Amino acid sequence: MASMEALFANIPGRNLQFPKTRRTGFPGGAMVRLRRVYGGAARVRCGLIEPDGGKLVELVAPAGPEREAIRKEATLAGGLPRIKLSRIDLQWVHVLSEGWASPLRGFMREAEFLQTLHFNCLRMPDGSVVNMSVPIVLAVDDAQKRAVEGRDRVVLVDANSNPVAILKDIEIFNHNKEERIARTWGTTAPGLPYVEETITNAGNWLIGGDLDVIERVKYNDGLDQYRLSPAELREEFTKRNADAVFAFQLRNPVHNGHALLMTDTRKRLLEMGYKNPILLLHPLGGYTKADDVPLSWRMKQHEKVLEEGVLDPDTTVVSIFPSPMHYAGPTEVQWHAKSRINAGANFYIVGRDPAGMGHPLEKRDLYDADHGKKVLSMAPGLERLNILPFKVAAYDKTQRKMAFFDHSRPQDFLFISGTKMRNLAKNRENPPDGFMCPGGWKVLVEYYESVASGTKIRQPVPA
Amino acid sequence: MASMEALFANIPGRNLQFPKTRRTGFPGGAMVRLRRVYGGAARVRCGLIEPDGGKLVELVAPAGPEREAIRKEATLAGGLPRIKLSRIDLQWVHVLSEGWASPLRGFMREAEFLQTLHFNCLRMPDGSVVNMSVPIVLAVDDAQKRAVEGRDRVVLVDANSNPVAILKDIEIFNHNKEERIARTWGTTAPGLPYVEETITNAGNWLIGGDLDVIERVKYNDGLDQYRLSPAELREEFTKRNADAVFAFQLRNPVHNGHALLMTDTRKRLLEMGYKNPILLLHPLGGYTKADDVPLSWRMKQHEKVLEEGVLDPDTTVVSIFPSPMHYAGPTEVQWHAKSRINAGANFYIVGRDPAGMGHPLEKRDLYDADHGKKVLSMAPGLERLNILPFKVAAYDKTQRKMAFFDHSRPQDFLFISGTKMRNLAKNRENPPDGFMCPGGWKVLVEYYESVASGTKIRQPVPA
Repeated sequence: MASMEALFANIPGRNLQFPKTRRTGFPGGAMVRLRRVYGGAARVRCGLIEPDGGKLVELVAPAGPEREAIRKEATLAGGLPRIKLSRIDLQWVHVLSEGWASPLRGFMREAEFLQTLHFNCLRMPDGSVVNMSVPIVLAVDDAQKRAVEGRDRVVLVDANSNPVAILKDIEIFNHNKEERIARTWGTTAPGLPYVEETITNAGNWLIGGDLDVIERVKYNDGLDQYRLSPAELREEFTKRNADAVFAFQLRNPVHNGHALLMTDTRKRLLEMGYKNPILLLHPLGGYTKADDVPLSWRMKQHEKVLEEGVLDPDTTVVSIFPSPMHYAGPTEVQWHAKSRINAGANFYIVGRDPAGMGHPLEKRDLYDADHGKKVLSMAPGLERLNILPFKVAAYDKTQRKMAFFDHSRPQDFLFISGTKMRNLAKNRENPPDGFMCPGGWKVLVEYYESVASGTKIRQPVPA
Repeated sequence: MASMEALFANIPGRNLQFPKTRRTGFPGGAMVRLRRVYGGAARVRCGLIEPDGGKLVELVAPAGPEREAIRKEATLAGGLPRIKLSRIDLQWVHVLSEGWASPLRGFMREAEFLQTLHFNCLRMPDGSVVNMSVPIVLAVDDAQKRAVEGRDRVVLVDANSNPVAILKDIEIFNHNKEERIARTWGTTAPGLPYVEETITNAGNWLIGGDLDVIERVKYNDGLDQYRLSPAELREEFTKRNADAVFAFQLRNPVHNGHALLMTDTRKRLLEMGYKNPILLLHPLGGYTKADDVPLSWRMKQHEKVLEEGVLDPDTTVVSIFPSPMHYAGPTEVQWHAKSRINAGANFYIVGRDPAGMGHPLEKRDLYDADHGKKVLSMAPGLERLNILPFKVAAYDKTQRKMAFFDHSRPQDFLFISGTKMRNLAKNRENPPDGFMCPGGWKVLVEYYESVASGTKIRQPVPA
């Protein structure tokens, strides 16, 4: 890991690194290159939106004595009590450590948890309000609670028992799962993927506190170089002299309807007078449900979309958003937007039924398809963010391409749902010409072939 | 009804009436007397907290041509579509008409409904925020929706088909009951009293709009003179030269523990330098679950508490709060507090487990007993209100009276729960001396006798 330390020394007053991409995001298939830049003077941030709370939270200890002291305390035999993190817990440590959830400095204590559940926002000491809609919490069971009680700090360890962080000034409080689920998802129906994965069998207590993270969280899956932190993204946008950053959250392959929307957004921003709007194409990299296309395949697909010129690499930054997915619709879309403010985005594109899914028990969507954008436009703490609602794109049979739906000639348009797209790819059928770039479609077909022939077929979760 | 019209002409620039009580609330058993005061100049409101939104909403049409025009439109044969109000709907019209929910001007449209569900607050056009935690909505079924579609106003009528109000600039939107229940109560367990009473069998649509209320809502139950509007309460507090108003919400008989708390609060406010703190003893008068003591009996009980000097009539205003009860714990306590701001209260006493009840299915309280006061202290839009958390009062066996619990000698204290109190009264047993004033206890015993011998025993709702 030592060689990676050079990558994340974002400490004020220290040497500063950030990624330099010549041709953005996916520079013609090449990896993002890193270049070392010295000194704080190189930062010009005046054009970027302020992070929530005014200052980006960064919780990874700087390489050197500080890190070693924390590591030593965390590894001391007979020392602090230990809590083992699940895969998703570790994703949240990642999220917290880089300040996506600024101004949060660790797993929520009860005051933050309650404000999140009831108000989807946190009041700051100065009276201002920041958005915070999904609980970022760490559950422990009765035995872990007993082991920790009376201590004010614990070590968080990964699946291999390697120390990841120290959680300080801890507070343990009741994990009322039913209330958490009801207030976050607006239903308690069994079958919510994140709930089944992380809550149902979790402990009856939550432990909150401030984090000291020993090293940057890595996945060693060949994609770590795309996991730019908010600080690194801000540096990238600054370097490109972006005067507007528009974020596009996604967890699905990019089809030409998405692309149309993004290129149209850039056009609109130029018309508004911005000189250099940059797109943050920001696939979600944490937990997704079993029938979503896995991150590695989606990244291959996105690469093709840029390679084949559907999106312009010069005005696009592709990066991975490390958060797990809640599928909590209007509640979660706020998180998706708020975290992108912290990465420097001041425009956010919101689609139909963002972070939505089918009701686990009933034959209907869990959320009203319009509530996401409505709630987002009204959400406390997001007033600074410009919300760009989706126009509806569909396949225009007359033009043989994806286009904005024209209400005057509905018969010319074909709506291709995600389910339909997946079924076509599974069956190695082709979608209509112009639906998706050929290279991107090929990746999708290959993915489904790999699933069909693979050693293990992932069980779909109700959706 | 004509003779009652004189009671509610709270129209700026018109004659103004408000109740004058010589000895407050229950002036020695006498009814509240009304005195006519002329002109706006008599109002001195500088000492009272501003209503939410800056101006108290009052939706009852002034007597005269304006009222008659609305009445005429509402009664015109072949005129506007009609929607019949349930008993609880009418209670909400009452609440809205007098401005308890200021700045709401009618049943919520979707934007207000969504903000309430997700944020427990509403953003005002000037960017300020007011608290609003429970949905105040009107449900209609498919047939009613069809009858109303294409119209921009409807008449709301009572159980006898008498017009009550016109709802203007209507908006019809989806009534997602599951989501409403989950986000309001933090559970969807069957057996929530308000849900079963008003939501489960309600229509699948909600209709929002602005209200023109024809006349003040009356119940003709002998208690209408205690139903002071926020404007009337403000006048009363002003007349008494109150420099602090502390509100006590209740839906139960007052025992000496409650009284201790209220008298102690007054003492603390005097110590803080206030010269004339006034208590608003404010029993909830709308829907309550079947095993709560009915309003009429509670009012008799409260009257005894004042008559027998347990509370000081000179510094107490007793009035009825017209809202129905949700039993929605930390969500509802915000409504209980917010509505009292509109009535002029700047201090709010909050107890253990406010608006709480037992879980309908599990053997536990539905809410954490401390969440109410925590959520209240953090709630957006309530920053101006001073929250006074309950001290725990219990029966001190050594002093033979209710006293603040002394942790150094727990063995001396007896906790008498509401259930135990009710069971004692049902069995005509006496509580320990000093638990409740004898006259108040007698009322409770009489109530349970009337239930046992009565023509109709109300079915208890799970709680």
